[in-house]
Amino acid sequence: MTVHLVGAGPGDADLLSVRAVRLLARADVVVHDRLIEPEVLALVKRGAEVIDVGKVPGGSESQPIINDLLIALGRSHECVVRLKGGDPFVFGRGGEEMMALRTAGVDCDVVPGITSAFSGPLAAGIPVTHRAVARGVTVVTGHTFDDDDDYFRRIAHRELTLVILMGVSHRAAIAKQLIEGGIAIDTPVAVIESAWTRRQRVTRATIDELGALDVANPAIIVVGATAAMDLREVLSEAAAVS
Amino acid sequence: MTVHLVGAGPGDADLLSVRAVRLLARADVVVHDRLIEPEVLALVKRGAEVIDVGKVPGGSESQPIINDLLIALGRSHECVVRLKGGDPFVFGRGGEEMMALRTAGVDCDVVPGITSAFSGPLAAGIPVTHRAVARGVTVVTGHTFDDDDDYFRRIAHRELTLVILMGVSHRAAIAKQLIEGGIAIDTPVAVIESAWTRRQRVTRATIDELGALDVANPAIIVVGATAAMDLREVLSEAAAVS
Repeated sequence: MTVHLVGAGPGDADLLSVRAVRLLARADVVVHDRLIEPEVLALVKRGAEVIDVGKVPGGSESQPIINDLLIALGRSHECVVRLKGGDPFVFGRGGEEMMALRTAGVDCDVVPGITSAFSGPLAAGIPVTHRAVARGVTVVTGHTFDDDDDYFRRIAHRELTLVILMGVSHRAAIAKQLIEGGIAIDTPVAVIESAWTRRQRVTRATIDELGALDVANPAIIVVGATAAMDLREVLSEAAAVS
Repeated sequence: MTVHLVGAGPGDADLLSVRAVRLLARADVVVHDRLIEPEVLALVKRGAEVIDVGKVPGGSESQPIINDLLIALGRSHECVVRLKGGDPFVFGRGGEEMMALRTAGVDCDVVPGITSAFSGPLAAGIPVTHRAVARGVTVVTGHTFDDDDDYFRRIAHRELTLVILMGVSHRAAIAKQLIEGGIAIDTPVAVIESAWTRRQRVTRATIDELGALDVANPAIIVVGATAAMDLREVLSEAAAVS
């Protein structure tokens, strides 16, 4: 009787871990968030129960209900998979679910996943760190953005690539705070929508243009010099030269 | 004729992606760094050539040689896998290798991996972000530490978890800079050696004790309030209560 908190990676079923695939093929119940691709859910054992507890960004009221559901399922089923996009512990609230399960005495383990924070930018040819461009990267969520708090102004840093998950809804206010925090207005930004899926779309601009961009969730925002890079394009440049 | 830059994840072969396993079973040549576990290399096709280009931390002179090797192999073999620990683009110099290959006209693609930056801490029960504890995380490398530069003083931030990869050799100087940058001396740190392997060892202390800890590479250093967390222990506490 174990609940496995499993990272589904960025979307492509081929980027699931071997352990994740094995657990999906074995689980009696799979509890998943929205944003899990159909090709991933196709790996679930035939006859297993699949429960979608997808939440719209902004709402967190449902977390205690999800915790209680996982506890109940963990007590009644041999193998439960709690499937989350990306990595379950990078803004995935995996920690909270794990604590709830363990406090209730339900066995629980974790299978990390490929985080969207790094693989999302990479899908657009952006390495979040690159020698002589950025020596480090900060990852934050825009999900908990609060107008009364100047968090993004405080964490603004010109030397670090900034990756913002779930930041699209508040992109104008976030950009404003980052500029107030010292980020130059012509700093490159990239928005990667639906990374690693057929719907992937990449929009590049500068930080002062971010608020006006026509982009929608699910998306990853990258701010900093690396956001102007596109490793995929070196090929076409080389091809054009030859 | 393609060179695949493949992330091997944190060490456990079960945490390889499905695509990584498929490529290892197909590759004619595998070029890998040190720190790749034997159980991962055991997945390489029988008869394939396996080349270890492992470098000791600190040495980067060998990068142009590796680039040239990959270019030559990419021109002479149908399927080449360049295998890197963790994710190839999170301080893995994947970007540099990709640019070198593409500039040389060699086809190249990327398979992201589970980054050690997040999965290493998790192996010690540390979620790098956790509601009400840390809203964001910064990842940097200690590999390029330079005494004449105060990089770690500049990036020190009390509100962000800091994950330092390859920082063990310079841990005393890094701790000193972080404290100078405003990190309180009693800030929790954790050092996770050989995460996700049988040799895994976790040492917890405070930032002012970091320099004196008896720890060795490969290791991940976590600095910040989340470093004191251990999600694995809630179970034993709950068990002790019941």
